[in-house]
Amino acid sequence: MRIVEIRVTPIAVPDVPLANTKGVHQSVFLRSVIELHTDCGRVGLGETYGATRTLNGLKAVAPTLDGLDPWHLNDLRRRVEMALPDAGGVNAPTALADHRVVDVVYSAFEIACLDLQGQQAGRPLHDLLGGAVRDTVSFGGYLFFKFAKRDLTFGPDILGEVMTPDALVAQARWLVDDHGFQSLKLKGGVLDPDQEIETMLKLREAFPQHPLRIDPMGAWTVPTALRVIDKLAGVLEYLEDPVRGMDAMAELSARTDMPLATNLVVVEFEQVIEAVRKDAVQIVLSDPHYWRGATGSIRLGEICRAAGLGVSMHSNSHLGISLAAMIHVAAATPGLSYDCDTHYPWSSREIVKGGRPVFVDGRLQVPKTPGLGVELDREALADLNSLYNRAMVADRDDTDEMKKYVPDYVRKVPRW
Amino acid sequence: MRIVEIRVTPIAVPDVPLANTKGVHQSVFLRSVIELHTDCGRVGLGETYGATRTLNGLKAVAPTLDGLDPWHLNDLRRRVEMALPDAGGVNAPTALADHRVVDVVYSAFEIACLDLQGQQAGRPLHDLLGGAVRDTVSFGGYLFFKFAKRDLTFGPDILGEVMTPDALVAQARWLVDDHGFQSLKLKGGVLDPDQEIETMLKLREAFPQHPLRIDPMGAWTVPTALRVIDKLAGVLEYLEDPVRGMDAMAELSARTDMPLATNLVVVEFEQVIEAVRKDAVQIVLSDPHYWRGATGSIRLGEICRAAGLGVSMHSNSHLGISLAAMIHVAAATPGLSYDCDTHYPWSSREIVKGGRPVFVDGRLQVPKTPGLGVELDREALADLNSLYNRAMVADRDDTDEMKKYVPDYVRKVPRW
Repeated sequence: MRIVEIRVTPIAVPDVPLANTKGVHQSVFLRSVIELHTDCGRVGLGETYGATRTLNGLKAVAPTLDGLDPWHLNDLRRRVEMALPDAGGVNAPTALADHRVVDVVYSAFEIACLDLQGQQAGRPLHDLLGGAVRDTVSFGGYLFFKFAKRDLTFGPDILGEVMTPDALVAQARWLVDDHGFQSLKLKGGVLDPDQEIETMLKLREAFPQHPLRIDPMGAWTVPTALRVIDKLAGVLEYLEDPVRGMDAMAELSARTDMPLATNLVVVEFEQVIEAVRKDAVQIVLSDPHYWRGATGSIRLGEICRAAGLGVSMHSNSHLGISLAAMIHVAAATPGLSYDCDTHYPWSSREIVKGGRPVFVDGRLQVPKTPGLGVELDREALADLNSLYNRAMVADRDDTDEMKKYVPDYVRKVPRW
Repeated sequence: MRIVEIRVTPIAVPDVPLANTKGVHQSVFLRSVIELHTDCGRVGLGETYGATRTLNGLKAVAPTLDGLDPWHLNDLRRRVEMALPDAGGVNAPTALADHRVVDVVYSAFEIACLDLQGQQAGRPLHDLLGGAVRDTVSFGGYLFFKFAKRDLTFGPDILGEVMTPDALVAQARWLVDDHGFQSLKLKGGVLDPDQEIETMLKLREAFPQHPLRIDPMGAWTVPTALRVIDKLAGVLEYLEDPVRGMDAMAELSARTDMPLATNLVVVEFEQVIEAVRKDAVQIVLSDPHYWRGATGSIRLGEICRAAGLGVSMHSNSHLGISLAAMIHVAAATPGLSYDCDTHYPWSSREIVKGGRPVFVDGRLQVPKTPGLGVELDREALADLNSLYNRAMVADRDDTDEMKKYVPDYVRKVPRW
């Protein structure tokens, strides 16, 4: 089995103005869809970020994959590294923290290769990762402060403005009612910390049994984080990236019993080692989009087990190919003991056949069909590729978008 | 594909009195041969230690594997852990350092499962590990001080007594001439350190281009190790387990630039983390017999890469199934930058069809056939199982054997 054709299709998906400490989501989010066609007529699928640096990386690597055996992941890695020397980060130079282009590009193609391996072996992808340890994967409701969407050119808003604790609780109610989520995570760092503390306390009151998390993406100083922790002790299952940078996380970790999670300071294996040396975090967020693919995410789980760290799963805005990859990885990660993040309910489109899966009690079934278990809906793909060409958005810039809502907005991390 | 029959066959293989700091090899070495038979008529093979604690572990787990899908390695791990709660170490209570029974037993069955996966997928085992990054695997010559064998009941001696630097150099010449080995490793800790220093210097003189190592298995104190290092600076490519225990290794490491390797203080993933925290070693020896199998060995390689550690490969006395497993793992470990250890030239028997492979320039070809690529020679297996029953040796006890040659021998680590 050899790869004979590689397609990389950028798409834009209508989004709503979800806020974070960098700014706010644009009118569309960008994804790249990977197709690896083989000499035996199989198609392996992958999905990853769609902004310029990733897209350019994918396109630079694609021609070098001609003739690759999809089982040869070490060869894939070598080809990616050869094609992208010194490629830097996918969000550089504006990133708070960044994922390396080589890791992101490798990951996208690796998933597509594993899809092909599974198809050839007649095995679901998770069997190539050691086998599923669960029949369903549990996701949490991802809560956002947001604006009412102004520009409806590419798609409608969802539920209007949410900029108060009470409105956020109402949003949580919607997510829980519609999808049955059993835990809730707030993208914080948007309002003043006191308002976010109030929000978490109101969520606790409204959802007494739901594990709760907040992720201010490094927006707080260590003293602010300690003040928040003091108010939310016993309320949070973990606190994600409260402060910016490995050393600030280590400083905070030394001063609190609150479990600290991260997807900002630990995004490659070298940083796991650094975090262990500095005792900086207690939980690492896995993600097959940058942790050297699905096999890398499984390896992360094993390292975390050995280091006594917990494993959770990170999400970016995504569609069904990414969702399938996340489910396979989550299914085969024994140490995953938290509900996975997902932005999935915040969009309404799909590019895989059969449409959007339905969450039951916040859970999705682990596929039993060969490979990833999803097939491309080419009409839907063409439609979102056409939107990509019309939308004229080539990069994600939440800060720039924020200025449309708050003209004098200045990005600052930490802010409080 | 389901496992319907599990066979565990203990065998004894004629050995020669190779010395180490614990004592000397007995007249036979023990191995266990694993066969996993499936409902589709395939047979997956594994080979591991044969002493009582391992054999009992294998036998305790075997019946619980009925019905296992060989792709479900997480399920295999679960079954092994369930069947062997608190199973301790394979060599306890006399071990210098030990491998956990659960890891050893899991590893043996995992290799056999991967053999079945590869057969079903029509792929060599290394393709299940990310694919081969080399066409041949390079082994080093493994040198031993030894006695002239007294009891020839089970097999002949090889080259008589080797207890001086000059005799050791002659042994090295034999290994290099017969197998073409490009590097040499001495099992040290046997003679006085000054004699072993002299031995290494004579090896350097006789083989000016061969990378050289010495492994005294923790026989030295830190001051002795520093004295040896002083004499052998520039002569060794690395020094393996010069002192006993993680903390002594860390103390030595802090006081020298000599790269320190280990297969004693880092034998499970938790200990990689501890070694990183303590900066105790620079090279970790991989081995699919205890590093949670082939997949675990590959994960070790990835952790070592991230931690800036080198990877080499450990060996015990073994036959062709183990050799095949070692080759597949070595082929698919990108970071492996040293010649692998192997005891293989020190025995002359084989249990796989086609007989013993021939080293060319110290190298063996990486198999391209599905699975492990070896098939059981049942006649040879029966023969060595019969020897196991006749030899009446159920455990390895090098110290007890040593007393046959040196009646007043007292085991002591560190000795110098």
